[in-house]
Amino acid sequence: MTAVISKPIALIDGQKCRENIFHMANKARIAGVRFSPHFKTHQSRAVGEWFRQEGISEITVSSVTMAKYFAQAGWDDITIGIPVNICQLDEINTLAEQVRLSIFVTDRNSVKKVLDKVSSAISIIIEIDCGYHRTGVPHDDHITIQDIIDIIGSSDHKFRGFYCHSGNTYQNNGVEAILQVHNDHKCKLMDLADTFGKYNPSVEMGDTPACSVATSFEGIDVIHPGNFVFYDVMQAHLGSCMINQIAIAVACPIIFKNKNRMELVVYGGGVHLSKDYIIIEDKICFGLPVRFINGSWSDPMDGCYVSGLSQEHGMITVTDEVFDKYEVGDIIGILPIHSCMTADVLGEMQTTQGQALDHMRAGKFA
Amino acid sequence: MTAVISKPIALIDGQKCRENIFHMANKARIAGVRFSPHFKTHQSRAVGEWFRQEGISEITVSSVTMAKYFAQAGWDDITIGIPVNICQLDEINTLAEQVRLSIFVTDRNSVKKVLDKVSSAISIIIEIDCGYHRTGVPHDDHITIQDIIDIIGSSDHKFRGFYCHSGNTYQNNGVEAILQVHNDHKCKLMDLADTFGKYNPSVEMGDTPACSVATSFEGIDVIHPGNFVFYDVMQAHLGSCMINQIAIAVACPIIFKNKNRMELVVYGGGVHLSKDYIIIEDKICFGLPVRFINGSWSDPMDGCYVSGLSQEHGMITVTDEVFDKYEVGDIIGILPIHSCMTADVLGEMQTTQGQALDHMRAGKFA
Repeated sequence: MTAVISKPIALIDGQKCRENIFHMANKARIAGVRFSPHFKTHQSRAVGEWFRQEGISEITVSSVTMAKYFAQAGWDDITIGIPVNICQLDEINTLAEQVRLSIFVTDRNSVKKVLDKVSSAISIIIEIDCGYHRTGVPHDDHITIQDIIDIIGSSDHKFRGFYCHSGNTYQNNGVEAILQVHNDHKCKLMDLADTFGKYNPSVEMGDTPACSVATSFEGIDVIHPGNFVFYDVMQAHLGSCMINQIAIAVACPIIFKNKNRMELVVYGGGVHLSKDYIIIEDKICFGLPVRFINGSWSDPMDGCYVSGLSQEHGMITVTDEVFDKYEVGDIIGILPIHSCMTADVLGEMQTTQGQALDHMRAGKFA
Repeated sequence: MTAVISKPIALIDGQKCRENIFHMANKARIAGVRFSPHFKTHQSRAVGEWFRQEGISEITVSSVTMAKYFAQAGWDDITIGIPVNICQLDEINTLAEQVRLSIFVTDRNSVKKVLDKVSSAISIIIEIDCGYHRTGVPHDDHITIQDIIDIIGSSDHKFRGFYCHSGNTYQNNGVEAILQVHNDHKCKLMDLADTFGKYNPSVEMGDTPACSVATSFEGIDVIHPGNFVFYDVMQAHLGSCMINQIAIAVACPIIFKNKNRMELVVYGGGVHLSKDYIIIEDKICFGLPVRFINGSWSDPMDGCYVSGLSQEHGMITVTDEVFDKYEVGDIIGILPIHSCMTADVLGEMQTTQGQALDHMRAGKFA
């Protein structure tokens, strides 16, 4: 590893990351669907450039703040992929003057407020709930949908189409379970597009698990996955990716060893990895340790896992063999459970070659 | 509320916060123990000033970075409360030239490296594991302890004493359970101080639950609690504080309502609250909603809780009555489960009166 590490930092394997971008972009190209990658995972202008080099020109973000961040980096076709926050309509209006902006709406009152406040023309997507039950108009609530379309129709803004985030692809493991949810939601969305066909709505979907494993995007117009750029242990566990496609590892200095408990304790806790976890073989797992080698890292070490996290400490339960290989002061890598959260809480990234990568959260005292 | 809120932000009730500081400082004064508050919870120079006004002159932090942050704000007696990270000895050496510095050590090799690299005199505390089993020399490992003391004795650095973090006071609810752990660990630490009495070691302990509920600090020389400055739902649940002592609430705009599920969805997710949770009545709870009133906030709303979090979304399950009172665009407050994590991930704080409070993580794009 070229980078000199003295405290926790997210290391990005630039080659793996660019391969992940290439594969998804290529899959979209072959399928003939538009690709509007979600930038909430990396939140980085530098990583954004790798997308641009794959010919990407439209992107998705998860906040107005993030839209402004990427607008300043020259992105001019941006979808804010969260029900519109009507407390930020002034900022949205300013953004709409600068870029081609699309927003999500889910209720008639918010649409009316958008129409009142936003003077530059924008595109409005109705978020549809096909069964995940987080946000969105229920897919069978045609009255509300028609109502929203009519309100938009009375303005200079454009009704763009329907979007569904199938977050419940995260709730079951395996390609088959992911595809079952995906196909169910896709059918519901295509039915809606058919019902409201005279408005020529787009059919848009988002999640990384389905976009990774689906072999066809027939019936879909735009895909918006985000996590695939780095992937993570959760995605590998679900079956969305191979473990060696994970393009992010957090480098952490070892500060303590305990032989009786077979534990290595690192400087690297919840404020570096986030507290997201998965259950593997009845054990709560906050990450998987890897060894840095040849400008990247190994597969996870057999029988080892991050078993606990406090604010600044990470406890790694390891095998005898691994325990003896590491000393206090050595740097160990941790593949995160949920890379979007990890990149966000760390707010500092660099490539394994030592090249700094910006992050929207960078700028903190260091 | 004076502050104008359009996106998630940590609001601090300055009066409650200063009362929390006063109570702990006063308790330490009455007991005749030194008070070295842990600043990892607030990470704020402005909040630090409130401590200074209570006569506090020595502080504890959880990283070298944090030590530098507060050294720049004029704090000159700083303990870095995590086993020394020997990858940062150059920075520690620079700090040692600027402030009265104390560090934690847990193994002989690290002590030797400290002696090699750090030329200005510092104080060295041996972290002791009395049963929490995170970090520290086991309390009964007198050989290692003697060894470390001897190594320090061969240098110009000072052996200061023994510190124990009783993190397992967090594992059981109720004053009695907290005190049982605390007293057990205190006895072990006092026994050690007795055994190594000729070196005149200090007895130092840390956790907020015990420091909040203990009626006596007899036998302890220094206390280092941190969380009490804000407290949080976890502390109230443990019995460390009353719910109305919690001095932090995250203000979040409502972006979606679902009547069937009795859910309010806010812009405010894992990147704002952190993913820490507790189980209350068999339900996973990521926070408790409150209403902002009179420059502060209400008690939590009966029967309502944050039932889910994704990156930017928070799902609040509410009663019929609460559901009908709130509209999309309204601001609702959330008492966090773990305020240290919440303040860290948000990195932005202001008082309920609208006064900005710095945070070490501030400076991110906004």
